[in-house]
Amino acid sequence: MAFDTQYTNQEFKVVGKRVLRPDGIDKVTGRARYGADMNAPGQLVGRILRSPHAHAKIRAIDTSKAEKLKGVKAVVTAADLPDLTRGDMGMYDTLENCMARGRALYDGHAVAAVAAIDADIARKALKLIKVDYEILPHVTDVDEAMKPGAPIVQPRIRTVGVNPAPTKPSNISQVSEFGHGDLDAGFAEADVIVEKSYKTEQTHQGYIEPHACLASVGPDGQAELWVTTQGPYMQRNTCAALLGLEVAKLRVTASEIGGGFGGKTHVWMEPVALALSRKANRPVKLVLTREEVFRGTGPTCSTSMDIKIGARRDGTITAAQAVLRYQDGAFPNIWGMLGAMTAWACYDLKNVKATAYDVLVNRPKVAAYRAPSAPMAAFGVESTMDLVAAEIGMDPVELRIKNAAKEGTRASYGPTYGPIGIGPTLEAAKNHPHMKAPLGANQGRGMACGFWFNFGGQTCVDLNIGQDGTVNLAVGTVDVGGARASLSMIAAEELGIPYEKVKCIVADTASLGHNDTTEGSRGTFSSGMATVFAARDAVRVLRERAAKTWDIPVDRVEWRDGKAHAFGDEHGNLAPLSLEELAAKAARTGGPIAGHNEIVADGAGVSFATHICDIEVDPETGKSRILRYTVIQDAGKAIHPDYVEGQFQGAAAQGIGWALNEEYIYGADGRLQNPGFLDYRIAVCSDLPMLDTQILEIPNPNHPYGIRGVGETSIVPPLAAIANAMSNAAGVRMTHTPMSPPRVLKAIREAHGA
Amino acid sequence: MAFDTQYTNQEFKVVGKRVLRPDGIDKVTGRARYGADMNAPGQLVGRILRSPHAHAKIRAIDTSKAEKLKGVKAVVTAADLPDLTRGDMGMYDTLENCMARGRALYDGHAVAAVAAIDADIARKALKLIKVDYEILPHVTDVDEAMKPGAPIVQPRIRTVGVNPAPTKPSNISQVSEFGHGDLDAGFAEADVIVEKSYKTEQTHQGYIEPHACLASVGPDGQAELWVTTQGPYMQRNTCAALLGLEVAKLRVTASEIGGGFGGKTHVWMEPVALALSRKANRPVKLVLTREEVFRGTGPTCSTSMDIKIGARRDGTITAAQAVLRYQDGAFPNIWGMLGAMTAWACYDLKNVKATAYDVLVNRPKVAAYRAPSAPMAAFGVESTMDLVAAEIGMDPVELRIKNAAKEGTRASYGPTYGPIGIGPTLEAAKNHPHMKAPLGANQGRGMACGFWFNFGGQTCVDLNIGQDGTVNLAVGTVDVGGARASLSMIAAEELGIPYEKVKCIVADTASLGHNDTTEGSRGTFSSGMATVFAARDAVRVLRERAAKTWDIPVDRVEWRDGKAHAFGDEHGNLAPLSLEELAAKAARTGGPIAGHNEIVADGAGVSFATHICDIEVDPETGKSRILRYTVIQDAGKAIHPDYVEGQFQGAAAQGIGWALNEEYIYGADGRLQNPGFLDYRIAVCSDLPMLDTQILEIPNPNHPYGIRGVGETSIVPPLAAIANAMSNAAGVRMTHTPMSPPRVLKAIREAHGA
Repeated sequence: MAFDTQYTNQEFKVVGKRVLRPDGIDKVTGRARYGADMNAPGQLVGRILRSPHAHAKIRAIDTSKAEKLKGVKAVVTAADLPDLTRGDMGMYDTLENCMARGRALYDGHAVAAVAAIDADIARKALKLIKVDYEILPHVTDVDEAMKPGAPIVQPRIRTVGVNPAPTKPSNISQVSEFGHGDLDAGFAEADVIVEKSYKTEQTHQGYIEPHACLASVGPDGQAELWVTTQGPYMQRNTCAALLGLEVAKLRVTASEIGGGFGGKTHVWMEPVALALSRKANRPVKLVLTREEVFRGTGPTCSTSMDIKIGARRDGTITAAQAVLRYQDGAFPNIWGMLGAMTAWACYDLKNVKATAYDVLVNRPKVAAYRAPSAPMAAFGVESTMDLVAAEIGMDPVELRIKNAAKEGTRASYGPTYGPIGIGPTLEAAKNHPHMKAPLGANQGRGMACGFWFNFGGQTCVDLNIGQDGTVNLAVGTVDVGGARASLSMIAAEELGIPYEKVKCIVADTASLGHNDTTEGSRGTFSSGMATVFAARDAVRVLRERAAKTWDIPVDRVEWRDGKAHAFGDEHGNLAPLSLEELAAKAARTGGPIAGHNEIVADGAGVSFATHICDIEVDPETGKSRILRYTVIQDAGKAIHPDYVEGQFQGAAAQGIGWALNEEYIYGADGRLQNPGFLDYRIAVCSDLPMLDTQILEIPNPNHPYGIRGVGETSIVPPLAAIANAMSNAAGVRMTHTPMSPPRVLKAIREAHGA
Repeated sequence: MAFDTQYTNQEFKVVGKRVLRPDGIDKVTGRARYGADMNAPGQLVGRILRSPHAHAKIRAIDTSKAEKLKGVKAVVTAADLPDLTRGDMGMYDTLENCMARGRALYDGHAVAAVAAIDADIARKALKLIKVDYEILPHVTDVDEAMKPGAPIVQPRIRTVGVNPAPTKPSNISQVSEFGHGDLDAGFAEADVIVEKSYKTEQTHQGYIEPHACLASVGPDGQAELWVTTQGPYMQRNTCAALLGLEVAKLRVTASEIGGGFGGKTHVWMEPVALALSRKANRPVKLVLTREEVFRGTGPTCSTSMDIKIGARRDGTITAAQAVLRYQDGAFPNIWGMLGAMTAWACYDLKNVKATAYDVLVNRPKVAAYRAPSAPMAAFGVESTMDLVAAEIGMDPVELRIKNAAKEGTRASYGPTYGPIGIGPTLEAAKNHPHMKAPLGANQGRGMACGFWFNFGGQTCVDLNIGQDGTVNLAVGTVDVGGARASLSMIAAEELGIPYEKVKCIVADTASLGHNDTTEGSRGTFSSGMATVFAARDAVRVLRERAAKTWDIPVDRVEWRDGKAHAFGDEHGNLAPLSLEELAAKAARTGGPIAGHNEIVADGAGVSFATHICDIEVDPETGKSRILRYTVIQDAGKAIHPDYVEGQFQGAAAQGIGWALNEEYIYGADGRLQNPGFLDYRIAVCSDLPMLDTQILEIPNPNHPYGIRGVGETSIVPPLAAIANAMSNAAGVRMTHTPMSPPRVLKAIREAHGA
C-alpha cells in the first residue's frame, strides 16, 4: 500500500531529533539484563559436549558414567530430541544442528549435553561421556566441496534448481539464477570486457555477548525461555516445534542483546537447554563460551566467485555476469541465492545474469550476518567496476553514476524500483569534500556501492496510556540498534506529546502477538508502521472520550498537539482536553485507554550506500591503515539521526574488519584453529578512524513516515571500497579477503616480481 | 448494562467443568516464582529498622555509623522519601506508613532502612542506626481510643461526618450512617427487643508468603519492581507517585502470590525498597520476616459494637440498629463505614440504621481482609438474630427466611437489589441433610448468613493467537484463586476450542493497560467480562480472515464450534475453516490475529451465603471442636466449580480461625506480644473438619456469563455461626472473639455461677 506521505514533506516535532536513548544508563551501569543475567531458584548449569572432528560417524555415546556423577541431573543426546519435524527439512536441519544425529558434521557440532548443580560438575560430566567416533573424510573449502569426488556432507541432498533433477547426492544444494537480457549479445557489444575471480573467507558477526539462555520446562508442557535473541517469536515457534510444545505454552522473553547482527536470528543451543530442563525438571542456564560461539554457532559464508563485465568506452555497461559460490556450512541454505539477487542491484543493466551455487562443507551452519551475502558479491562486482573504469579511463564514480539504477529500473533480481537512493548517494560522494582531499605517498582512495533489500513482515504493537498520561509502548521486535527510542519518538509524534512521556519495552511472547524476527533492517520500519497505527487507534479512543466528556459527536473532535479540540461554531468555546486530562479521567469515561495494531508490514524500501575510503599501505610490511572513511546512505526518513549514523558506522566498521583481518582458519584436520578473539582478529578502535556519515532521506512511499531500513546496507561496500583504495595506494589488486598484511605483502612482492 | 444471558440458560461446553489447574505443577514442584524468588545481578539486601515503641516522637536518627559500615550501600529515612503528595491525604498516609515521619505511630512502624551486600551486614547496619525516641502515651483499644482524654494518634485528624465540623483533633476519623425508615416507630411496633454488645479482636490474613520485592531504580527514573501483590497497577501508581516517577517508567511485575486475602492490596515496604535502590543505584531485594509481617503490615480491624433488633412474635423484624466501632490502626480509613454498609444487607427491613465510627489507635495501618469489615458486623447481627429467634420461639432459619432480602428490596446501604441469593441459600440450608443430622452431648448446631458487595472496575485483556492455533491470554488481575484457569475456560468457550489450547498469564504493567487490584472478588468477574469481549474481538478478526480466504462478505461468515462457517445458499459448499487453519495462514491474510478489550466492568453482583456449623464444647476446658461445617453460597455462574468450592472452603476456614483462636495480643506497653505463628494461633488442618459446600447459581444479569464474585462472602458467617452453635452446645452466648478455650471456659463458669 502507498501512504499519504504528509509527514515526510512536513515538519516533524519529535521525529528527526537526537533524543536521549532510554537504555543508555542501564547499559553503562550494568543494570541491563543480558542473556546470562537471569536466574531462577534451583537452576542447573548446562554444558554441551562438541565434536572434535570435522566429519565423523557417531557409533555410540555412553553417558552412563556422567549420569552417575553426583550433582548431574540430566544428560541429553539426540535421543532426547526425537524427530517431530514431519518432513519439514528446514526444521530438521535446525534439529540436527542443535544436536548431532548419528554423524558429527563439523568441528564443534554438539553431540551431548549435561545439566548439573554447578559448572565444575558439568565440566567433569562432559569428560565422562564417551563418544565412539568413526572419522570420515571432510571438506571445508567451497571450491573443493564442488569438485567431483569431494566428501559428501549431506548424503540426502540432491541439487535443487537444475534440470534434469539429479539423482545422486551433491554438496551443491541449490543453483539459482537471476537476470534478464542477452549476455552474449551484451558482451558482443562491449568495447572492453573485464573478468576476474575473487574469494572471501568466512567471518563471524563478533557480537560481544555469547549466546545464553535460561530454560524451564515443566512436566505439564508449560515452558519459559529467557534468551538473548533477535527473534523471541522465532525461538518460540521453532523450539515449540522441536520439543513438541504448544506455541502458547512456551513463553519466551528476549533479554537485552549484546549484539546479534544476524547471528541471533537462529535457534542454536536453546532446544538443548529446554530438553535438559525437561529431563531434569529444573531450570537450566546454558551460556556458551567464546570458543563455542565460534565453533558452534553461525558465521557468514566463505565464497568464491567470477565476475565479468562488458562496457563501451563511454561507460555504458553492455553485459554483466556473476558466478557465485557460497558455502553454507553443513546445512543447505539460500545464502548464495541472496548473493546473486544483490550482486547487480545497484545498476540499470540491459543484459545481466547472476548464478549462485549454495554449497555444503564441514563447517558450522552459516547464519545471517548483516545484509547477508551482499558484501561478498559486492566485493567482486565493485572491484571489477573499478577495473572497468581503469580500462576505459573513466572516473569510477562517473562509471557508476552512468549505470546507476533509478526509479523505473528493472532490478536484476526481478522487481521494478520505485524512488531509490543509489544515484543520490553517488552524486553526494562525487561532491563530497572527501573526494577532493589530498593524498600522500603510499596512500590511495577507493569507493564502492552497496545494496540491501530491507524486510517488512508480521508485526504487533500495543500502546497503553497510564493514569498520568505517560505511555507504555509494547513492541515485539528486539531492539538491536535503538528501536525503543525511535518507536517512542513515533508514538510521541502521533500522540502529540513529548518523547520523554513514552516508555517502550520489548514484550514477551505471551504478552503480545507474533512479531517476525528483528532482521533485514525491519525493526523500525515494521514496528514503526504498527506504532503509527496503534497510536492512531489510541487517538480514536481519546477523541471518543473527549466527545463523551463534552457530550458532542466524535466527528466534531479532532486531535492536535496532544489535545482533543472541539470544532465547529457551536463548540468553539470548549477548552481543549489534553492527553493527561483524558488519561486522568479514563476510569470515569469508559476505562483504560489503549491502541493496538497487528499487521503484515508490506512495502519495505530498498536501500543503497556509497562509501569512500582512504588507505595507506606500508609496502615493507603489507600493513594498511584506514585514514579516512565516509559513509553515504539513503535512510528513507531518519527517525533518530544518531542511531542511523551509529548503524552506518557500525556496519562500516564490521565491513572494514572483514576486509582487512577477519577469517576462520581451518587446519588440514578440518578443525577451526582460531576460535577466540586473540586469534580471530576483529577490528578494534585503534584500527579505525572516525567514520564520517552523511544521511540522505529519500522517503519510502510505502511507509507513513517514509522509513526504510538502515542497519545493513553499509556493511556491503567496505570490502570493495578498501580493495579499490588499496589498489590505488599500493598498485596491487587484492582479490581475496581478508586483505591482511601477509596477503598484501605477498601481492606487492609478486607485483614487483619479488 | 444488562447482558444477553443466552449462555446462562444454555449448555456451556467448557465453563462449569472441573479442568486441570495450569499452575498446579509449578506450585508443587517449586518452579513457581514468588516474591522472594527473583534475583538481579548486583542486587543488595534490604532491611528495615522498626520502632519498638507504640507511640514516640523521633527526635533524631543518626545513620552515620551504619553508612560507614563496609558493604552498606544505602541507608534511607523519611528524608529520602520527600513528600510529593501535594495534599492527597490518602497518599500521604501511605507515605507515612512506609516510613515514620517524625513520629513512630505503632510498634513496628518503619523508621529507617538499609541496603547492603549481604544480610549479615544489613542486620549489623540496622544495629548501628541510633534513633532518639521520646516515648509518648499510646492507646491500642478501640473503646479506650474513643474516650475523652485518650492519647491522640493523629493530631491532624478532625472527625468527618458530624455536624458541626469539629475543630479539635479526635481519634474518631469518620462517622458514617446508613439506613432508612423510622427506628423509634419500628421499635415501638416490636413485641420483643433484643440488645447486645459484642467485641472482636484483631486478626491477620495469615498468608503463607511474607511480603517480598525486588526493586530497581535507575538515575534516569526508569524503574522495575518485582513484587508479591494483588495489585501491580496499584503498586505502580502509588510507588510512582511517592517516588516522583512517571507511571509508564515504573514496570511492575506481580510474582506468583502465596496468599493475600486483602493484605496485599496495599503498598507496604515497596517504596522503601525503591528508595534504597535509587540511593544505592543497585537492585534491592527486600523480604519481610514473619515478625515484620505481623508488626509492620496490615491486619484487620478489632471492633466493638452494639446491636439492637425489635421483632414481632410472627418473626417480622420491625427495627434494626447497629452501632459499630472499628479500629483502623494509626491511619484513617473507611473500614467502619464498610461494616455499617454490610451489617443489615441480608435483610428486607422497614426501619434500619447502622452507625459506624472509624477509630485511630496505635496499631499498624489496617488492611483489607477478605470481605473486609463484614464478618465483625455479621458476628453481632447474626448472633442477635439467634437471640431474637430464641426470644420469640422461632426457628433461626425461619426467622431469617421471613426477613430475607429479595429482588426489589431496598438494601439498608442504599441500592435496590436485582435477583439475589440470600433466600435461596436459606431455603437450601433449611432443606440440607446437615440440618437434620443428630447431635450428641455437649454438641450444638448454629447457622448464620453473610453478605458481600463484590466489585467491578477497570480491566484490560489482550488475546493473541499463535501460529498453531493455541492462544495466549494476557490479563492484569493477579490470580489469587484460580483465575488463570477460569479465564482460559471463558476464552475457550467463546472461541469454541478446548480449554487446554489457552494459556493465560498475568502480564506486567508495561505490557498491558491498567487493571484495578484483585480485590472485592472482582478478578473473574471483571477479567472474565473483558475476556469475553476480547475473544469476541478476535472472533471478528477470524471471521474477516475466513471471508478474505473465501472471498465472500464477512457478514456471510459465522463463528461456531471453533470454526468459521460460510452460510447462505451460495456458500453452502465451503468447508468450514478452523481456528488452527486460520492461525496457520494468518501471515498471508493480514498478519497476527488478536483480540483486545479495555473496560470498566460495571454491574458486579452482590453475593450471599448461609453457613451451618456443628460444634462440640468441652465444658471442663472450654476447648471446642468443629464437627461438621456446610457452606451454601450463591456464586452466580460457577466457572470452575473446584475453585469456587475452594474459595468457599478457604473463606470458611479463615472465619473459623478468626472465630476460635486468632487475635493480636498487645501488652500494656503497646507492643504486640505474639508476632509469629507460634503464638498467633491460626487454624490448621487438624482444627477443621471437611468443609462441605453447596454452590447455588443465580446468574448475575449484568455479566455476559452471569458471573458474581465468590471469594469473600463465606468468611462473613463463620463467627456468628460458631457463636450460635456454641450457644446451643454449651448454653453460653459468646460475645467476644476469638471464642478461645479460656474465654469459653470463663463464660461457662460464669453461667454456672462459678
